[in-house]
Amino acid sequence: MQRTLVELIAAKRDGLSLSPDEIGRIVSSFLAGELADYQMSALLMAIYFRGLGEAETVALTQAMLHSGTVIDLSAVPGAKIDKHSTGGVGDKVSLCLAPLVAACGVPVPMVSGRGLGHTGGTLDKLEAIPGFRTDLDVKDFARIVGDVGTCMIGQTSEIAPADKRIYALRDVTATVECIPLIVASILSKKLAEGIDGLVLDVKVGRGAFMKDLSRARELASALVRTGTGAGKKVVAVMTDMSAPLGHAVGNAIETREAIEILRGGGPKDLLECTLVLGAEMLVLGGKAKDAAAARATLLGAIQSGEALAVLRRMVAAQGGDARVVDDPSRLLLAPSTVVLADRAGFVTGIDALEIGLAAVAMGAGRTRVDQRIDPSIGISVDAVRGTRVAVGEPLARLYTNAPSPALEARVRAAFTVEEGREPPAPGPLVLGRVEA
Amino acid sequence: MQRTLVELIAAKRDGLSLSPDEIGRIVSSFLAGELADYQMSALLMAIYFRGLGEAETVALTQAMLHSGTVIDLSAVPGAKIDKHSTGGVGDKVSLCLAPLVAACGVPVPMVSGRGLGHTGGTLDKLEAIPGFRTDLDVKDFARIVGDVGTCMIGQTSEIAPADKRIYALRDVTATVECIPLIVASILSKKLAEGIDGLVLDVKVGRGAFMKDLSRARELASALVRTGTGAGKKVVAVMTDMSAPLGHAVGNAIETREAIEILRGGGPKDLLECTLVLGAEMLVLGGKAKDAAAARATLLGAIQSGEALAVLRRMVAAQGGDARVVDDPSRLLLAPSTVVLADRAGFVTGIDALEIGLAAVAMGAGRTRVDQRIDPSIGISVDAVRGTRVAVGEPLARLYTNAPSPALEARVRAAFTVEEGREPPAPGPLVLGRVEA
Repeated sequence: MQRTLVELIAAKRDGLSLSPDEIGRIVSSFLAGELADYQMSALLMAIYFRGLGEAETVALTQAMLHSGTVIDLSAVPGAKIDKHSTGGVGDKVSLCLAPLVAACGVPVPMVSGRGLGHTGGTLDKLEAIPGFRTDLDVKDFARIVGDVGTCMIGQTSEIAPADKRIYALRDVTATVECIPLIVASILSKKLAEGIDGLVLDVKVGRGAFMKDLSRARELASALVRTGTGAGKKVVAVMTDMSAPLGHAVGNAIETREAIEILRGGGPKDLLECTLVLGAEMLVLGGKAKDAAAARATLLGAIQSGEALAVLRRMVAAQGGDARVVDDPSRLLLAPSTVVLADRAGFVTGIDALEIGLAAVAMGAGRTRVDQRIDPSIGISVDAVRGTRVAVGEPLARLYTNAPSPALEARVRAAFTVEEGREPPAPGPLVLGRVEA
Repeated sequence: MQRTLVELIAAKRDGLSLSPDEIGRIVSSFLAGELADYQMSALLMAIYFRGLGEAETVALTQAMLHSGTVIDLSAVPGAKIDKHSTGGVGDKVSLCLAPLVAACGVPVPMVSGRGLGHTGGTLDKLEAIPGFRTDLDVKDFARIVGDVGTCMIGQTSEIAPADKRIYALRDVTATVECIPLIVASILSKKLAEGIDGLVLDVKVGRGAFMKDLSRARELASALVRTGTGAGKKVVAVMTDMSAPLGHAVGNAIETREAIEILRGGGPKDLLECTLVLGAEMLVLGGKAKDAAAARATLLGAIQSGEALAVLRRMVAAQGGDARVVDDPSRLLLAPSTVVLADRAGFVTGIDALEIGLAAVAMGAGRTRVDQRIDPSIGISVDAVRGTRVAVGEPLARLYTNAPSPALEARVRAAFTVEEGREPPAPGPLVLGRVEA
């Protein structure tokens, strides 16, 4: 006899497994209003404590995925590969990575999110480009992926609606930080893009959701297992998010920095992160036999201008002012104020969380989903880790119409400056890798 | 800074304690609609896993208690003492106990519940008496307790409304079986009666919610600790509920049996249970110095007819036909069918759960709260544990308008009949006792 919905909650509460059919029934009953919000939230809390097994997580991902449209990209030749980052401060990698990988022959269909809390969001950064539209429908999305090689839009109401409703509940019931639920949420949206493979950038450190490596590895493993269980090629890379990635934090300013990467410039760590993830994508997409070959191909596409050309085409196809690609200074910034060092020494740390929160407080991010952001606001780090500064030398620049000593002090306090004879040894960017 | 409601859910989820103020804020926010149902149910599930400490359980009890009216019985002289049973099959003790204890000078204000699932409810049994009203308001209730010494009503909308709303959520979110939540639910209602002390009958065994003694002891201890923490005199007794209590299961038939106790008859186990609980109540109420003295007083009140007289006055005061007290056969029963033994031996067990479920299936109980019950329907056990039966001798009698071979077989199967030379040793009725 079929278990009732309350019996299913009780079974999970007691640590028993639910069958794929039962998980499918939970999701469909929830969308149909037969499983009430208060029942779903009790179940989510039970899952927080009891977890989900591999088959259960795959079933939940599939049920959430199939609650909406799965985009059909079969008309686009080749393996479609996307990248997802669990979020960090200054993480503008998607903006340079997608055109770069597409330029190397691997189509990149990308459905992204907005910034919330201390982390930024790809959509907000793209919208710093005048005219750029992220609200395209699924048909235009598929067409642009085919024509340009990549397209970057927001989650439409057709994509994984069950995830949207479940996430809204998790957000107000203290059930966000639960690995199988995070996994199902990420993968249900990403699999809806019609991809064949996915590279995951699991950020680790102060500025990331996962503060320590063991927890990040747990998430990375669960993502790879579940994505593989759902029939996709999946690789996860764990990267450092103790300090902001690159120099720029904000929207226009990060978009500028991402463009600089495709112009052959930009910060070393940002380029390295882009190459590491891009290499994984080329290998998954069958366009490189190994990481070394892939890196050479990626660097070639930057040097040839081909990657920048793809970005130019993508911006134009999505209604944006493509002139920014050749003149990033068209992305306007607010007036700047310099934050000066008040002691001498080596910069040994820059607290990514504090920089992220300061940027939000300035108006570059959101604390509520309905908040407006100002793309011209941001922070740029002048003295990255390892830099020697004297008293009165610049640590950072604040782009804001409302500078204040309190804000400057807050950003200054995010820098750890220590005396010493030699610069601190740079930590590795890549902290680990998980494959199926 | 005050923690937000979501932070309070997260704190409990993480096993941290909530302050009494925070628990008060949760309950008042819930009633005010600021803490949504889906947030409360997530919190209830977190409490299921993390439990509540003593101070937290007291705070929850107080918050639920003070969500409604606390009845003022200060005009009634003496210590007011009530009894609560966690529920069983054939448990009609309240009906004879309350008048008996009141007859000995201890006022008994009693707010009771209805039957749900396999256990019966005092209100349903009382309503088998023609005209008897259990929906009196708080003013009439207090007046009758003062005039008669006891009054038995249902939970009004004024009594612990937070408990009503929280219980409704627990029922559909698999969070019923959680000791601190059970404790707060029981005590918030009982403390609203304006009592000074409470005797708890924690039933143990197949026919009870607590199937084993260790779990029952845990509940009993939590009830005593919390009730004492809330400033009341509380004692808990654990009693056997592996077989039905007494012979009768149903509504009119149980009321008949309870009246028989006050007429000096009735089954031995039912009388014993009544005396054990009554003795605790007299001692708590200051009307006896110890259990032995209390038992003598109680038996005296039965023999003198004083207990029966209190019942007669209570029935009349609550609008019922008081003639049933002197002629219980006025409580009509449906036609009877005899269930015969199909093997010879000693009755070594009678499955209380199965008997309770059979009675519900016959129409004597409810599987949904809105179900109507027929007071004339019931089961009486002829061959109690220890009885020797021959093939074809009666095991039980079914009072129903719709007898069936399947029903007879079901009731027969609830009896364990085993060969042997001697009757099985009778198990103890009282399995333990907890005091502050």
